[in-house]
Amino acid sequence: MVNRELYNIGKARTVIRRLFDYGKEQRKLGNVVYDFSLGNPNVQPPKEVIDEIKRLADENPNGLHEYTLGPGLESTRRAVADNLNQRFGLELDWKYVFMTCGASPCLRASFEALKESADDEIVVLAPYFPEYPLFIKNAGLKPVIVPCNDDLTPNFDALEKAINPHTKAVIVNSPNNPSGIVYDEKTTNKLVAVMRKKQDELNRPLVMITDEPYRELVYNGQKEHCFAADYDNSIICYSFSKSLSLPGERIGYVAVNPKMQGADEMYWALSGAIRMLGYVCAPAMFQRVIEKCVNSKPNIEQYRKNHDLLFDNLTRIGFECTASYGAFYICIKAPNGDSEGLSELAKSLGILIIPCDEFGAKGFVRIAYCVNEQTILDSIPAFEKLYELLNK
Amino acid sequence: MVNRELYNIGKARTVIRRLFDYGKEQRKLGNVVYDFSLGNPNVQPPKEVIDEIKRLADENPNGLHEYTLGPGLESTRRAVADNLNQRFGLELDWKYVFMTCGASPCLRASFEALKESADDEIVVLAPYFPEYPLFIKNAGLKPVIVPCNDDLTPNFDALEKAINPHTKAVIVNSPNNPSGIVYDEKTTNKLVAVMRKKQDELNRPLVMITDEPYRELVYNGQKEHCFAADYDNSIICYSFSKSLSLPGERIGYVAVNPKMQGADEMYWALSGAIRMLGYVCAPAMFQRVIEKCVNSKPNIEQYRKNHDLLFDNLTRIGFECTASYGAFYICIKAPNGDSEGLSELAKSLGILIIPCDEFGAKGFVRIAYCVNEQTILDSIPAFEKLYELLNK
Repeated sequence: MVNRELYNIGKARTVIRRLFDYGKEQRKLGNVVYDFSLGNPNVQPPKEVIDEIKRLADENPNGLHEYTLGPGLESTRRAVADNLNQRFGLELDWKYVFMTCGASPCLRASFEALKESADDEIVVLAPYFPEYPLFIKNAGLKPVIVPCNDDLTPNFDALEKAINPHTKAVIVNSPNNPSGIVYDEKTTNKLVAVMRKKQDELNRPLVMITDEPYRELVYNGQKEHCFAADYDNSIICYSFSKSLSLPGERIGYVAVNPKMQGADEMYWALSGAIRMLGYVCAPAMFQRVIEKCVNSKPNIEQYRKNHDLLFDNLTRIGFECTASYGAFYICIKAPNGDSEGLSELAKSLGILIIPCDEFGAKGFVRIAYCVNEQTILDSIPAFEKLYELLNK
Repeated sequence: MVNRELYNIGKARTVIRRLFDYGKEQRKLGNVVYDFSLGNPNVQPPKEVIDEIKRLADENPNGLHEYTLGPGLESTRRAVADNLNQRFGLELDWKYVFMTCGASPCLRASFEALKESADDEIVVLAPYFPEYPLFIKNAGLKPVIVPCNDDLTPNFDALEKAINPHTKAVIVNSPNNPSGIVYDEKTTNKLVAVMRKKQDELNRPLVMITDEPYRELVYNGQKEHCFAADYDNSIICYSFSKSLSLPGERIGYVAVNPKMQGADEMYWALSGAIRMLGYVCAPAMFQRVIEKCVNSKPNIEQYRKNHDLLFDNLTRIGFECTASYGAFYICIKAPNGDSEGLSELAKSLGILIIPCDEFGAKGFVRIAYCVNEQTILDSIPAFEKLYELLNK
């Protein structure tokens, strides 16, 4: 009676979900768990965000909870465009900024908006968020996974080979989930060069879809970066979930680069796709919060401290970690590539970490450090024990 | 380069949108408009809802803005199930309640979850919300419209003829948008009888998808009603947009009747569909608001006053109105069936009302009375002038 594919997707318990449920159970039993499984920021939103939510709730201005237009409040869209233009030297038009319920609908709608034929392909650079290939298939296109190098950096030779006349777009995600890797200037230039070359060969736009929810989470002297500054045929997918610690409030945007060939068409196709997926408008109160707080910054210092504490201790203990200074993820290498085994063994010690085979990072395990500093401190002896057991 | 169908949907300015923009422009120019175009409640949310939003914002409890699980907070889902069970004598299981971003995703996901073949059909009873057939097509099924009787009540002979071996479900919307009509007991019994008869003939479940955002907006002695009490193979689609005046906050739910044959399968298929449409969770803060305020009631007295004021004046003036005592809509008959002409003429007098041909109510015009009482009072002379011009 029902669609089997969707039934299977609904019924499937992802590894993240399984560990999350396990952690909840253990806490109920009064057991200590060091939960590094979820990208659910435990760091509070910036003070000005909390204050603005309070102010709106207290003053309850007329029409606060009313429908906005589908693409959002003009004032919010203008604030977003101005912010990006000032920080990255872009020339975004607020009319091409569409406020959304986070980044997932941006990606899902982009695939659908690009779909002209069942042969159309979207290229995904590994490692990647596992929803990408599922969304691409659900939108009726084919995902093409480009494997990464052994250190989880992008493999540009493989990318070049993967792009063909069916390719509509390439998804780029830096700072990366799950690796935490941030593309440096050299990597970005190489990516752009490959895409421009293939675009010239194809003699039509090859779209870059950039999934940038971790854009502001960079440490160690790296700069915040927006790929639309380098590549004209680009669509920016963004969420305030990570930067402002508002993941449950579902607020983000998709913006079409006005320099894109056919930008107007792309915007309206996106707009149609978002409407047809059942989105009416992004949450109205949080649109107003963003209007005021778009310039707010995450507590980078806390994340940097968490990163260093974890990275320094893990390498001291003997773990092989990715050289990652972005997002709030570190990946460690599992002995003999057995990431499931490592995750299971860690679980037995109360450490919840995610095997990354489903993320296209075979043999790696992800540690999300968007947690209290104390959790990291408390977990160190357990990580020491883990290393000991692994090397017995 | 883009999907033409979605481009056309995105670019198309619906009649509601055109009138909305016109009203905005006129107000900017300082001109008076009586805007009855949008179902955007101008009535404030109940006091306890406003208070709960304030309390949450002030207390900022730990994890307030974090991701919830996909289907929502257990406490909210339990509150919703308990509320429906107490009011309507249902036996809903909270595990089959999935919190959503309003009612649109519930509908869109239901169609997709039911889709097994490209021949599958969903039956839509006219008059209907124009997104229904678009959503059905976008999900890959065929919409089959059942025309209504001349007075906008459902035509059950036509319904019986429309159901065939390809029919997966029938959408029911009472209180109805655009007519405001509420199915009385006789109508409900007839609907259920027809569907049970056809279901027996098909020898498999025929699903009733009920779109119930106006459930609580009934006056004139009519009772709130939930169709799941009458029909086992049913899916409830609900939004708090109308009942709690929170349309911009995108909070609602879909619930599978546990008495449905294959309820478990249906729930997981819905769950997979919602995830694949890019929904991560319903807004977290408003899930908590609903947990506390699910028993809150809309200001029915204000809506009843608005209804009576409008209905009594329009009939006094000479307009032919639908006998509607639900939602916040009244439909009036256009002379010679020219609803576009009536809407245009009204616009010239500052009255914004929606021609309903696109809603499957040819020759009718919709008036949304979720406005200030004063707007109605002020508009009466304009309606008088309108009638005069029409009958010149």
